[in-house]
Amino acid sequence: MSTVKNINPTIIVIFGASGDLAKRKLFPAFQNLYLDGRMDEKFQIIALGRAEKTNEEFRSYVLENLEKFSRKSGLSLEDTQKFISHITYLRHDIDKEESYQELDSKLNAIDESFGLRANRLFYLSIAPSFITTISSNIKKIGLAANAKQDRIIIEKPFGYDKTSAIELNEMLSETFKEEQIYRIDHYLGKETVQNILAFRFGNSMFEPLWSRNFIDFVQITVAEEVGVEDRGGFYEGVGALKDMIQNHLLQILCMTAMEAPASLDADDIRSRKADVLRSIRRIKPNEVDHYTVRGQYDAGFIQGNPVPEYRKDKGVAPDSNTETYVAMKIYLDNWRWQGVPFYLRTGKRMQEKQSSIVIQFKPVPHSSFSYGNEGMTPNRLIINIQPSMDIKLQFMTKKPGLSLSLRPAEMVFDYFQCSTMSPEAYETLLADALAGDPTLFMRWDQVEQAWDAIDTIQEFWKNNAPANFPNYKAGSWGPEAADELLARQGHAWVSNTTTTVKEEI
Amino acid sequence: MSTVKNINPTIIVIFGASGDLAKRKLFPAFQNLYLDGRMDEKFQIIALGRAEKTNEEFRSYVLENLEKFSRKSGLSLEDTQKFISHITYLRHDIDKEESYQELDSKLNAIDESFGLRANRLFYLSIAPSFITTISSNIKKIGLAANAKQDRIIIEKPFGYDKTSAIELNEMLSETFKEEQIYRIDHYLGKETVQNILAFRFGNSMFEPLWSRNFIDFVQITVAEEVGVEDRGGFYEGVGALKDMIQNHLLQILCMTAMEAPASLDADDIRSRKADVLRSIRRIKPNEVDHYTVRGQYDAGFIQGNPVPEYRKDKGVAPDSNTETYVAMKIYLDNWRWQGVPFYLRTGKRMQEKQSSIVIQFKPVPHSSFSYGNEGMTPNRLIINIQPSMDIKLQFMTKKPGLSLSLRPAEMVFDYFQCSTMSPEAYETLLADALAGDPTLFMRWDQVEQAWDAIDTIQEFWKNNAPANFPNYKAGSWGPEAADELLARQGHAWVSNTTTTVKEEI
Repeated sequence: MSTVKNINPTIIVIFGASGDLAKRKLFPAFQNLYLDGRMDEKFQIIALGRAEKTNEEFRSYVLENLEKFSRKSGLSLEDTQKFISHITYLRHDIDKEESYQELDSKLNAIDESFGLRANRLFYLSIAPSFITTISSNIKKIGLAANAKQDRIIIEKPFGYDKTSAIELNEMLSETFKEEQIYRIDHYLGKETVQNILAFRFGNSMFEPLWSRNFIDFVQITVAEEVGVEDRGGFYEGVGALKDMIQNHLLQILCMTAMEAPASLDADDIRSRKADVLRSIRRIKPNEVDHYTVRGQYDAGFIQGNPVPEYRKDKGVAPDSNTETYVAMKIYLDNWRWQGVPFYLRTGKRMQEKQSSIVIQFKPVPHSSFSYGNEGMTPNRLIINIQPSMDIKLQFMTKKPGLSLSLRPAEMVFDYFQCSTMSPEAYETLLADALAGDPTLFMRWDQVEQAWDAIDTIQEFWKNNAPANFPNYKAGSWGPEAADELLARQGHAWVSNTTTTVKEEI
Repeated sequence: MSTVKNINPTIIVIFGASGDLAKRKLFPAFQNLYLDGRMDEKFQIIALGRAEKTNEEFRSYVLENLEKFSRKSGLSLEDTQKFISHITYLRHDIDKEESYQELDSKLNAIDESFGLRANRLFYLSIAPSFITTISSNIKKIGLAANAKQDRIIIEKPFGYDKTSAIELNEMLSETFKEEQIYRIDHYLGKETVQNILAFRFGNSMFEPLWSRNFIDFVQITVAEEVGVEDRGGFYEGVGALKDMIQNHLLQILCMTAMEAPASLDADDIRSRKADVLRSIRRIKPNEVDHYTVRGQYDAGFIQGNPVPEYRKDKGVAPDSNTETYVAMKIYLDNWRWQGVPFYLRTGKRMQEKQSSIVIQFKPVPHSSFSYGNEGMTPNRLIINIQPSMDIKLQFMTKKPGLSLSLRPAEMVFDYFQCSTMSPEAYETLLADALAGDPTLFMRWDQVEQAWDAIDTIQEFWKNNAPANFPNYKAGSWGPEAADELLARQGHAWVSNTTTTVKEEI
């Protein structure tokens, strides 16, 4: 996130290097950073995996997947070979101390060949249950002994509730200092998410409007068209609340609602975000039904194709009560936002893949204008995060003609003219981790507060089975109860954030 | 301006019906209103002119010009004939009472054929010097005796200074009540000018920003590419201050700066506009040079073609000191705008035909962002009135890439998808006059205040010849002194309102 990135000699150690994330995101990201001159020539990737493989075998496996998954296409063989040559495969058994000793030798040998002690970046692309083992072995062998040079990146989920997260963090703290731990939420690496900060605090004309004085409500949507695919076994133990709300949606909420940071330094920004999480009104168990709606998808149609209900997906129990949809109303108890509802929703098998923020402004205090068939449309600022990447302002304008009646109109700013030119979220985040900039990573208090904000809900849901699962059709915008959640206050979801306002001329 | 227009049987009497305005604007406007069902079938146009012509001769003259100047093309012969048949030509001598008696007979005959006393709309499309004569004759014969039904439309200029305007108004008042007098400023009929009100008061998100708290300065430009053409003789006695600032630019200033009206009723709106004019800080003669810049064009190039200096234009004195350019700084002494400079400028032979309003917001109070080569661009709302008709918001956004640096960006709302579908300014204004809605016409106090605001300037200029005329090249953006006028406060003219912000990716 900083404006100048340090480029340091670094050895990257990937645990789970044969996994899905590594092949789809990590190797392409490192390659692009390398080709863009964002890596020191003195860098090595040590790829750890369970299987016995030669360097050549693994490198050609990476090469194959780079072609499939990198945003850069048509690269010369020379370029890719140059990158590939920095990768060394090492068979690794997470439970065995010898494996870490071998890793130690390898690290030292590389340092020697570099003629210096390189930085070390440990990327844990493995199931959360292995974190403890890896961490304690790193400590035992002293692989990350240099707090200024050595960092660890951990994927979500960080724990599965507040208690487990605290335990995990205490355990990690035995090996790593807080400033060495990079808890990744790839949403924060997205250009359009980072732009929220630029948009709010790089301009003078939006911030004066950005409060309870002028904003009616805020809506944050992360909707997916996909179901659980072949990850049903994993998803059963998680659900949408932990999988999406606790991290992505609460992080977007933070970007949207935070106060202006004194500087762009990591801790200034993260402190202002943590303030938001702390100000989330905690609810009591008997209020959960009032503030939240959970859902599970029934059979339906996605883009015209029939899809089965969640309970018939692979790896899912036929009587599963895991939620694939959550809608919730959040209040922030602070000066800026008192009384403004933040509506969050996320779901699988929704009508449209869409991540967006809708800022709906209060109606005009007084109007003598007449309106067309659509009536008065409230002013809205819409930030489309993905797949559309734009910012829209919806407002009323004079309908051309002899009478002074109004019609809705909009202005659009398309974030990208050419999306392949922009770095992927993982590139941004890995570049930051390499440079030692933790701005876009979650500080411990952020994780803890996020769990604290949803623990009551997950506890209540665990103890109170839903009455009506499945309760929304695949291809819809979720359960009816989610509409009622807003209708109670005279509000409604804005789902057509990507379509253009109809011009009635 | 009202939302529902009354359609009443009306006789329209055009003084100067063979003139330029009538053929270019009035007949096309009446025709289009008629074809759009905005006129009662019981309507007649009595066209008055000095020459001896038959009805047929005049009607075919109108027909010919309708084809040239109407925005509606490809009309059926039936449609145009139907309209034309409502026109009667009457030879008229402005000075002769008999002419008014003939007119009286004609009016009465038409009323009789209608079977009712129709409304009467007198359109004075003649030189201002004739207004008095016509008005007193109308009074003498009693042509406009019905204050509820009869109206008079008067073109600008209404007087040539405050004193003469008061005299003219007092004289008119002997014949007409204030509510019968429609002082036309065709700028107010433009869709994009009317939209200023819709934009400001039909939306909740702009008005909170619309004050000294957030706005750095406002700039209003009405630039023309044309010179005085063959109207040099007329222009010599007028100049840009009286021709443009006193009416068009001050009216746009009113729309931009006025408080919210209690309703859209004519007098609510016009009272709020008059408030703005009253709050214009009056300057002393010795301050004129500090607040204003006058200019006269030298030879130069317009769109690549050489054009002569003003002093060599037809009908212009070789040592003329008439200004063809004015820039001025206005302060409004009221709560909303105290200390915010409103920069007005208008000129002939400018680089580009352009009428626009630029609202420039204050810089961000604090920024840690880095900026690209262009540096920080202030937030701007740009309203292009003509020939471009759009609203733009210029703001900063994150430059795609790994660092958090900003670049300028913009959103645009194009007012028309199809400009031929919108009524012309004269259609709007004539429809309003026919319906008895004076909102878009200037009430007497507006005219008086507008003169009052500029009288000191014109007096000072008359008594103090400019030192350096001609002082700007045709095809430029005016004299250098106009840049200095803004530079003193660290401001600069925004002239590229129609070009798109350069994307630096």
